[in-house]
Amino acid sequence: MGTGSSGSRRTSTGKPRREISVLRLGHRPGRDPRLTTHLALAARALGARRMYLNPPDPDLAQRLARVGRRWGGDFEVVPAPDWRRVVRDHRGTVVHLTMYGEPIDRAVPRLRRGGDLLFVVGGAKVPPEIYRLAGANVAVGAQPHSEVAALAVALDRLGGLPTARAFRGAERRIVPTVRGKRVVPTRRP
Amino acid sequence: MGTGSSGSRRTSTGKPRREISVLRLGHRPGRDPRLTTHLALAARALGARRMYLNPPDPDLAQRLARVGRRWGGDFEVVPAPDWRRVVRDHRGTVVHLTMYGEPIDRAVPRLRRGGDLLFVVGGAKVPPEIYRLAGANVAVGAQPHSEVAALAVALDRLGGLPTARAFRGAERRIVPTVRGKRVVPTRRP
Repeated sequence: MGTGSSGSRRTSTGKPRREISVLRLGHRPGRDPRLTTHLALAARALGARRMYLNPPDPDLAQRLARVGRRWGGDFEVVPAPDWRRVVRDHRGTVVHLTMYGEPIDRAVPRLRRGGDLLFVVGGAKVPPEIYRLAGANVAVGAQPHSEVAALAVALDRLGGLPTARAFRGAERRIVPTVRGKRVVPTRRP
Repeated sequence: MGTGSSGSRRTSTGKPRREISVLRLGHRPGRDPRLTTHLALAARALGARRMYLNPPDPDLAQRLARVGRRWGGDFEVVPAPDWRRVVRDHRGTVVHLTMYGEPIDRAVPRLRRGGDLLFVVGGAKVPPEIYRLAGANVAVGAQPHSEVAALAVALDRLGGLPTARAFRGAERRIVPTVRGKRVVPTRRP
């Protein structure tokens, strides 16, 4: 299992950027492919470095690798047959996203000081022990929710949207525009 | 088609809260039920008043109505066989979420002044005319994305998480806790 800690990214102010990973538990390759794809795309677009996936799903990992080749950056889907090891080996704070946890407003200041972050995102059922293993159980609203939405809000609040620099090596890039679509090819570095 | 503008909600400071609706285009009842359910749950949890759904999907609307009975609030899924009419009849700003649009950072100050908001969220393909019909085409990161994540970030940035008051009439409510789950019954008003 690659940990892939290849060089910390820096923000535009030159400060090292906190590295963020996501651990998706309880993926069901037969039933969840689109939902977990959305989770991975959200993680990537909002600046996470990788998503550990349990159980592994090579098709999904390849799909995201293709997105990366086309649109840049170094996000990867890492197979995680042993998710407890991912949690145990994480240096930094393990944050379990759950509708039952403490409000994110209250948790954010602490998480900002918590070093690298591993967000644990369950599916319909999560192993109860995760509540104990996590350093923080955090709720994005105490309501039934989408884990994709909860992760997106948490990543946005903690890191904000990454700069274009985070997506180096793209074959193409979007030129933001108020009407329609503008996509231009880029030269690879 | 009910517009359901039954009383504006007020924030804790007493100011009338901007009413937010979502229009989901290109739903595929056979293929998308879970993804659109996530979109609806995210809209509800992040303070939207309703989600117009095109094409309509009575099963999904009933599922969300059950969530509302249990967890409170007045969110509803409104069938929208004629989505152009929803766009045309909206008083306020129509915001199309698209990876090709102007950056959300830049759009937010204008949207805050734009009255009630209707967020238009496409599926894999959106009718090109929406770029012209919308008052704003807004990107949550110029990267391939999840529409669930993009909507969640946009709602969070514009309205933040709603207070517990927004979910009145619940049968049960969560007591936020740092470990495990606490759910208590509530008396209906």
